[in-house]
Amino acid sequence: MLKKIHKAIDAQYPEMVEIRRYLHQYPELSFQEYKTAKYIAEFYEELGIPYKTNVGGNGVVATLKGGKAGKTVALRADFDGLPIQDEKDVPYKSKVEGVMHACGHDGHTTTLLTLAKVMKNYQEELPGTIVFLHQPAEEYAPGGAKPMIEDGALEGVDAVFGTHLWATTPLGVLQTSKDVFMAGADRFTITVQGKGGHGAYPHETKDAIVIGSQLVSQLQQIVSRRIDPLETAVLTIGQFEAGSAFNVIADTATLVGTVRYLEPEIQDIVISEMEKIIEGVCVSNDVTYAFDYKKGYPPLKNHSEEAELVLKASDNIEEIHTREEVIPVMGGEDFAYYTMERPGAYFFTGANKDGNPYPHHHPKFDFDERALPIAAKTLINAYFAYQEK
Amino acid sequence: MLKKIHKAIDAQYPEMVEIRRYLHQYPELSFQEYKTAKYIAEFYEELGIPYKTNVGGNGVVATLKGGKAGKTVALRADFDGLPIQDEKDVPYKSKVEGVMHACGHDGHTTTLLTLAKVMKNYQEELPGTIVFLHQPAEEYAPGGAKPMIEDGALEGVDAVFGTHLWATTPLGVLQTSKDVFMAGADRFTITVQGKGGHGAYPHETKDAIVIGSQLVSQLQQIVSRRIDPLETAVLTIGQFEAGSAFNVIADTATLVGTVRYLEPEIQDIVISEMEKIIEGVCVSNDVTYAFDYKKGYPPLKNHSEEAELVLKASDNIEEIHTREEVIPVMGGEDFAYYTMERPGAYFFTGANKDGNPYPHHHPKFDFDERALPIAAKTLINAYFAYQEK
Amino acid sequence: MLKKIHKAIDAQYPEMVEIRRYLHQYPELSFQEYKTAKYIAEFYEELGIPYKTNVGGNGVVATLKGGKAGKTVALRADFDGLPIQDEKDVPYKSKVEGVMHACGHDGHTTTLLTLAKVMKNYQEELPGTIVFLHQPAEEYAPGGAKPMIEDGALEGVDAVFGTHLWATTPLGVLQTSKDVFMAGADRFTITVQGKGGHGAYPHETKDAIVIGSQLVSQLQQIVSRRIDPLETAVLTIGQFEAGSAFNVIADTATLVGTVRYLEPEIQDIVISEMEKIIEGVCVSNDVTYAFDYKKGYPPLKNHSEEAELVLKASDNIEEIHTREEVIPVMGGEDFAYYTMERPGAYFFTGANKDGNPYPHHHPKFDFDERALPIAAKTLINAYFAYQEK
Amino acid sequence: MLKKIHKAIDAQYPEMVEIRRYLHQYPELSFQEYKTAKYIAEFYEELGIPYKTNVGGNGVVATLKGGKAGKTVALRADFDGLPIQDEKDVPYKSKVEGVMHACGHDGHTTTLLTLAKVMKNYQEELPGTIVFLHQPAEEYAPGGAKPMIEDGALEGVDAVFGTHLWATTPLGVLQTSKDVFMAGADRFTITVQGKGGHGAYPHETKDAIVIGSQLVSQLQQIVSRRIDPLETAVLTIGQFEAGSAFNVIADTATLVGTVRYLEPEIQDIVISEMEKIIEGVCVSNDVTYAFDYKKGYPPLKNHSEEAELVLKASDNIEEIHTREEVIPVMGGEDFAYYTMERPGAYFFTGANKDGNPYPHHHPKFDFDERALPIAAKTLINAYFAYQEK
Repeated sequence: MLKKIHKAIDAQYPEMVEIRRYLHQYPELSFQEYKTAKYIAEFYEELGIPYKTNVGGNGVVATLKGGKAGKTVALRADFDGLPIQDEKDVPYKSKVEGVMHACGHDGHTTTLLTLAKVMKNYQEELPGTIVFLHQPAEEYAPGGAKPMIEDGALEGVDAVFGTHLWATTPLGVLQTSKDVFMAGADRFTITVQGKGGHGAYPHETKDAIVIGSQLVSQLQQIVSRRIDPLETAVLTIGQFEAGSAFNVIADTATLVGTVRYLEPEIQDIVISEMEKIIEGVCVSNDVTYAFDYKKGYPPLKNHSEEAELVLKASDNIEEIHTREEVIPVMGGEDFAYYTMERPGAYFFTGANKDGNPYPHHHPKFDFDERALPIAAKTLINAYFAYQEK
Repeated sequence: MLKKIHKAIDAQYPEMVEIRRYLHQYPELSFQEYKTAKYIAEFYEELGIPYKTNVGGNGVVATLKGGKAGKTVALRADFDGLPIQDEKDVPYKSKVEGVMHACGHDGHTTTLLTLAKVMKNYQEELPGTIVFLHQPAEEYAPGGAKPMIEDGALEGVDAVFGTHLWATTPLGVLQTSKDVFMAGADRFTITVQGKGGHGAYPHETKDAIVIGSQLVSQLQQIVSRRIDPLETAVLTIGQFEAGSAFNVIADTATLVGTVRYLEPEIQDIVISEMEKIIEGVCVSNDVTYAFDYKKGYPPLKNHSEEAELVLKASDNIEEIHTREEVIPVMGGEDFAYYTMERPGAYFFTGANKDGNPYPHHHPKFDFDERALPIAAKTLINAYFAYQEK
Repeated sequence: MLKKIHKAIDAQYPEMVEIRRYLHQYPELSFQEYKTAKYIAEFYEELGIPYKTNVGGNGVVATLKGGKAGKTVALRADFDGLPIQDEKDVPYKSKVEGVMHACGHDGHTTTLLTLAKVMKNYQEELPGTIVFLHQPAEEYAPGGAKPMIEDGALEGVDAVFGTHLWATTPLGVLQTSKDVFMAGADRFTITVQGKGGHGAYPHETKDAIVIGSQLVSQLQQIVSRRIDPLETAVLTIGQFEAGSAFNVIADTATLVGTVRYLEPEIQDIVISEMEKIIEGVCVSNDVTYAFDYKKGYPPLKNHSEEAELVLKASDNIEEIHTREEVIPVMGGEDFAYYTMERPGAYFFTGANKDGNPYPHHHPKFDFDERALPIAAKTLINAYFAYQEK
Repeated sequence: MLKKIHKAIDAQYPEMVEIRRYLHQYPELSFQEYKTAKYIAEFYEELGIPYKTNVGGNGVVATLKGGKAGKTVALRADFDGLPIQDEKDVPYKSKVEGVMHACGHDGHTTTLLTLAKVMKNYQEELPGTIVFLHQPAEEYAPGGAKPMIEDGALEGVDAVFGTHLWATTPLGVLQTSKDVFMAGADRFTITVQGKGGHGAYPHETKDAIVIGSQLVSQLQQIVSRRIDPLETAVLTIGQFEAGSAFNVIADTATLVGTVRYLEPEIQDIVISEMEKIIEGVCVSNDVTYAFDYKKGYPPLKNHSEEAELVLKASDNIEEIHTREEVIPVMGGEDFAYYTMERPGAYFFTGANKDGNPYPHHHPKFDFDERALPIAAKTLINAYFAYQEK
């Protein structure tokens, strides 16, 4: 049956491109994906597949119950865009000023909708039940996965699979990991409240720039001295803003940054060590501070058996010439919440377009649309493999 | 004769207030003081005192040759305003958006114009020659003093005196120093060119925030370790700007600051040590930099005898109850150029208004107008004292 | 046959304890193990097993050619002691002042000698050839492994195995890794040549303590910012020595430390980044330096198949209740050179003695002698398993 | 009478050299100057001048009451040596191993004894009373001056004068100051108690070297940012000791240093800011510390009139060709306690020997003995001038 399904997917390719380009031209920001959700819902309406809308926000969940007994497996696609101005020179360029599908979520959505359309035709022969999870707000923590789960999206689901079109990986390459696949990613803001004053009278002030600089230097020690060298942690300060005039000592300094990690214990250590260092530096300088640490998505841990199954089940997909287990990717992904609840695996579908060097979130990001059917085939193969597990 | 002159000055008080308030409402920025210069020129025109305009820019120099032999003594007043929005709630508030006489130069100008008017009546009895130096652009280095001198403003001049209405010093207090009275004040910008990148991949970048923070820390050592502890130097970084997103490593960091010093040798050391430290930090991090150091005004050194003379000559001014020699003030003042060329002294005329706590350059700065006749009397007394020296 | 061999090993236990305790009382320092080498040689002499002495220094290599065809497999034991004063309160305490077998090499030697004695009795039935590598100088880089290899110790050898009695791992636990098992370990000394002087006149000096402290702070950035977060590196400064009087500014600072890493590329990066940072800090301070970096042992990489074989072949050893693959251990081990030349694996034989908390290299280090026969059995099992591979 | 006294002093020159060289060969450490005190006491015994011994320790106070009415003026000389090995190649080299008069106190004592001998002959004509203060333990805080004062040494005394032979000032130069003449000098020890461990496992430790280095860097900010730029402070860390092996993370770091200042308020600020910084750094690193701050001698403030008097009264001393007011010297001197209690002044008597470049406290320190009569004359002149004040 898989052969027939693959052929059916291939036959949908022109429509896939059409859907994808339509979505690409009308991206919506996280938590504001009203029209896209409506588009998805109407698609299922037309197919005659039952669905629920407003699941945990703008989420849409459709359910295709097969004619044969089997397990219930969810396939997930996210559908939000990014606050980036599209700088590509293509006919399907974004028509929304300052908003862009710069991460491939238009493609993910296309893949899932196409699979639904194809599989509707095989409903009677289908073992088990496919749950199509259309998730909003992946790009902006706390994200859309968590509220969808809280709203029951995984009820009755046995396993969950998902893929990301990966623009820096060549077409035909399938990548996943049997353990941590994507890092946890948090955000923090530290504001040091010093005491400003005339640039010629430092002794009457508490120089926020000197204090902020100390902080930056000392925070380096978390990674260099306080984390097990065999573990992984990144602490980056991306912004340092202080002062407004060359001859006035700054009264506040604002440091904004991100923490990446693979293990929850490491996240705990980083946070508690940051607190110690900030507290101490402020004691040293007799100043106050605000430390706002926003936990983002946890590390995405694949289940070993399901990841193995994704790799093996892709054997009969001709376009895939390379299957590899890779080291963790440092970016965050809220698919993490699904595999915390259910067995499952996430994987990358290689989608580099003609050597385009622009990574995800770049104004010139794009992907090779031929990756769409590959993604669809890999997902449905995993579905069937899981039925037989 | 001084008693008569003092009385004449007192009689001018209402007009002094009028002139000052007029000027206060129409401040002009440094190097753009066209209308003020015209106002001053017309004042001398009306008095019938010969004057030159466009001296070294917008400068006006008037000369009152006395009927008796004597020395030629210049009295100086600056007349530019500042790019500050006037926030005082007074009828004479600035009428120019974003520009304000927040340093008292309106008062200085009033003092000198009034002295000219009064002394015109004593021209025949006057020993020597008074040169009225109306100087533009004191607030913005390289300033107006230097070009006026280069344009001949001190030709034939034997000595020079000037005063600053000092808003944080009580009315009735006269302050000066027999040596360095005001510090040298320079400005610098350091731009570190690192290499930006994804916040999760520090090893692919050169983190400009970490580098900039190192710079701030190391620059502390110039004052703490490289300057003779018995000398004075201040190195302040007033602005630190780097990065634009929490999860992107910054590629440049910009540090803007000021250096203050009392002795030219110290300025030399600070500059050369800054160069070493910046060079070294950039070697350590394999990055490039731009270091733009703009020398501002040199330290203002009073001549000991002329400062002494100012103090003693004020004996017969009843309003002055306290005369003090003070330690150097850390701010810059381009009167420094005059005393580098001629004997002379600069002094502060106490002008605090009802305990107003706002310092110079503050949006709510103001001064007690009763200080205007005191300033005029002290200047003319110094003039006469110098004739008898 | 293995069952019989195991029984024979068990029967040797009293003699194993005797040999071990004898060696324990007469430890010798690296490169000075003359008596121990003689003891080993005489042991083989008595057994009638051919051996070579002075192999790459004090090395002894004995060869037991079996009666049946097979592969040649080397088993290695190191035999040097450490410059540590034995502080244990036991009858077999070291009799050499300041020298101690604080790392278990006495046990390793005992294991190998006992295996030789036992296997001599099975020579005819033995498939293949056992090469007994008694290696000196493991504790002190450049170590004894390299010169032994250069002197031909691995000639004709197909594979090599070795074990370390591991005092912090419980008895009955077998640990190894299929990839990097022990880190590379280097040593460095940085000497900063500043300029000393009177503690009250810092401006006449170049303060080596301030410079050294900068170095320590900046070196933190190698791990925190310049190494891929998914890789492993440690840079520790273990000693900081500078100055001799509270009121005299130090002219030199000496920093001595170690670098640990798992991949050669990381070692390269650490060294080149250290050079940059040291150079830059010295430019910043206008001083000179000496940087002496001594490469120690490279990371010990096990071969995956041979490690697997060690784990599986231990199935029939009753005393071993746990077999585990572990993350790399950060210490160095010159067994690394053997697996760079031949297939092979190194493993830990759990040897904790009654909960003794003292780690290797501690003055109170000791191990459970019951681990000796376990180590012997695991080695000979690996030998036989490799024959069947 | 002064002319006769000067002649008498000159006549004593050979004996002065003899006394000085004798004392030079038998130096004694601070608080252990038993033999020197005895020598001094016997000298007064022989002269028949009444004296007290054991004043505030090893102090000797002799009193020469003149035949005429007048004020009581104390002249002070210190008499302890230093723990330095004499490396001069002269016949009068120290005969005490490791102890040396490396600061000229032998000369000070000689000067005072000689003055006593000379003035004994003028007792009847002498107006007022000379108190000869022979003070022990100047070199080691808390010093000998304080206990002598507490023991009554200044009772009845109207003023006090003292001099230091100054080896780096040319012969014939007299130096003093009308305000602060010598800095306050304190000593501190900071011990950071981290947690040591294996150099490869930093996360299990609290690295005392990294913490100590942070401390050194942050302490720079006291001088650079927290002290009025117009004031003077020095904070030097002279010793940094931590760690004992390249591959073991240090558990403690010891920083020993000195603070110099001219004003008591500055001392207060330095101490309280040090406390803040140390506390904060230890909070940042979750470690404990010990901070031992030993206040040394306060700044030595001369009284303006008495300093003026020393300068003017030296007019008739032919050997003095230069009289100068100098900026403060950064070293400490417990003469400070006398001028806190009584009017007085301390001065330097130039004593450089043939261009000898070795400063005080150097193993090759020496002074020109021709400075001895100059010092005696300047002291007695000050005595007489004070009588006439």
